Amino acid sequence: MRISYQGEPGAYSEAAVFEHFGSAAAADPCKSFEDVFQRVVQGDSQYGFIPIENSLAGSIHQNYDLLLQHPLSVVGERYLYVKHCLIGMPGVRLDEIRKVISHPQALAQCAVYIRSLPGVTAEPVYDTAGSVKIASELRDRSLAAIASRRAAGLYGMAILAENIQDNPENITRFLVIGQEPAVPEGEAKTSIVFSLKNVPGSLFRAMSVFALRDIDLTKIESRPLIGRPWEYLFYIDFAGSTLDPVVERALAHLSEYALMLRVLGSYPRHRL
Amino acid sequence: MRISYQGEPGAYSEAAVFEHFGSAAAADPCKSFEDVFQRVVQGDSQYGFIPIENSLAGSIHQNYDLLLQHPLSVVGERYLYVKHCLIGMPGVRLDEIRKVISHPQALAQCAVYIRSLPGVTAEPVYDTAGSVKIASELRDRSLAAIASRRAAGLYGMAILAENIQDNPENITRFLVIGQEPAVPEGEAKTSIVFSLKNVPGSLFRAMSVFALRDIDLTKIESRPLIGRPWEYLFYIDFAGSTLDPVVERALAHLSEYALMLRVLGSYPRHRL
Repeated sequence: MRISYQGEPGAYSEAAVFEHFGSAAAADPCKSFEDVFQRVVQGDSQYGFIPIENSLAGSIHQNYDLLLQHPLSVVGERYLYVKHCLIGMPGVRLDEIRKVISHPQALAQCAVYIRSLPGVTAEPVYDTAGSVKIASELRDRSLAAIASRRAAGLYGMAILAENIQDNPENITRFLVIGQEPAVPEGEAKTSIVFSLKNVPGSLFRAMSVFALRDIDLTKIESRPLIGRPWEYLFYIDFAGSTLDPVVERALAHLSEYALMLRVLGSYPRHRL
Repeated sequence: MRISYQGEPGAYSEAAVFEHFGSAAAADPCKSFEDVFQRVVQGDSQYGFIPIENSLAGSIHQNYDLLLQHPLSVVGERYLYVKHCLIGMPGVRLDEIRKVISHPQALAQCAVYIRSLPGVTAEPVYDTAGSVKIASELRDRSLAAIASRRAAGLYGMAILAENIQDNPENITRFLVIGQEPAVPEGEAKTSIVFSLKNVPGSLFRAMSVFALRDIDLTKIESRPLIGRPWEYLFYIDFAGSTLDPVVERALAHLSEYALMLRVLGSYPRHRL
């Protein structure tokens, strides 16, 4: 089974693929999110794996846009703790390190830890997994990279310290996309996108659709539609599946108010 | 008047500072968002300027967290179109360019344009303004950078093409933060953050506070509180100022439901 993701081998997205599908999955690295969608649309890959929100950085609107532009369904979700490791040459001691390289966001997320290392400077590079590749090629004992545990293994490097991020609550949520809708059994969630006229109370009416039926929302987010100053796009996730008649009626009710409504898919709920 | 922002001279944040405060403002570059908040808290700067959301990349949760952690008020907002320029050595023709460097996000946002240039490759570097600095130092006629119009001027470089982003609707919203709350005259907006017990219908009740008083919401976003699985944080912006008695009553009503409620500030509304 081939699953496409954006990034290099050793990326956190790849780790999420293996956690979700098991280590036998054929993880297929792609250059861009657009490429991930294309692979699934053309049937080159069975599934795509895309990050949709991060607990520190927020929702990734670009991937919501790609979901709206492609005829694919959300068939799964996965939460992954982002646990950064300090990675150096095998046999190196922590006090030999003088420079740390990684993606600027990873360096920022480990700023307190890096400052705690005496005489160590940080230098940004393009990619987390790529920083390990660079460090392994330079074979410099004073150089360390910050990336995932798996990236260290891939490039034959050693883990000098683990879980070095300042905020332990660094979690990315991924969605699994496929050609066919899922038929989730057990506890399910559903993701929808819709737009409303921006008049006072319109969102309140839209929310009543769920509140009146005791449907529990797990995410709500508004996004102004640029160039259409009176319209908003909303992302909502809720507990339940479209196979449930109550959910079906709620969505029919919502379509009375919505200018546009797209059900992205129902899928088994993942809990960390 | 000194205004702190995160980034290097020539960054889009700096451009937003000048658009908002005029070209006489003393824009103060800082290494991190945390530094921007510290400057304002300690009185070294009168105001801080922070990006809070982007039309493609979404809300920046980290800056919401910093707003909650510091005793500062939101006193203004500013929307800025992100317009990327292709920047090269003075006198160079477009068909001499062989390599383009910039921040990976800027390269991604100009991918269609870059592909349209025959025989040109893209290479990521740390920063948009920094890519212009690099290109100016290397003095290589075949090398171009992608950054703001102002970055070209700062480093004595020429603009080879303008508005090269694939999606013209690339807009960043900034907030202005200061020690004292603003007293906005004319059309105002207010930003609040609050948390609710995650029980079905709780958000619906919270929204009724605004709907029953015809208060128009301009943004709503939920964010799960990690480690507290039954609580959510909500960001809401609405039309009106806390000086308006109707808004005052709505917030008193909301505080009956909210576990935590913080008014970040009221400020003059900016429209692009």
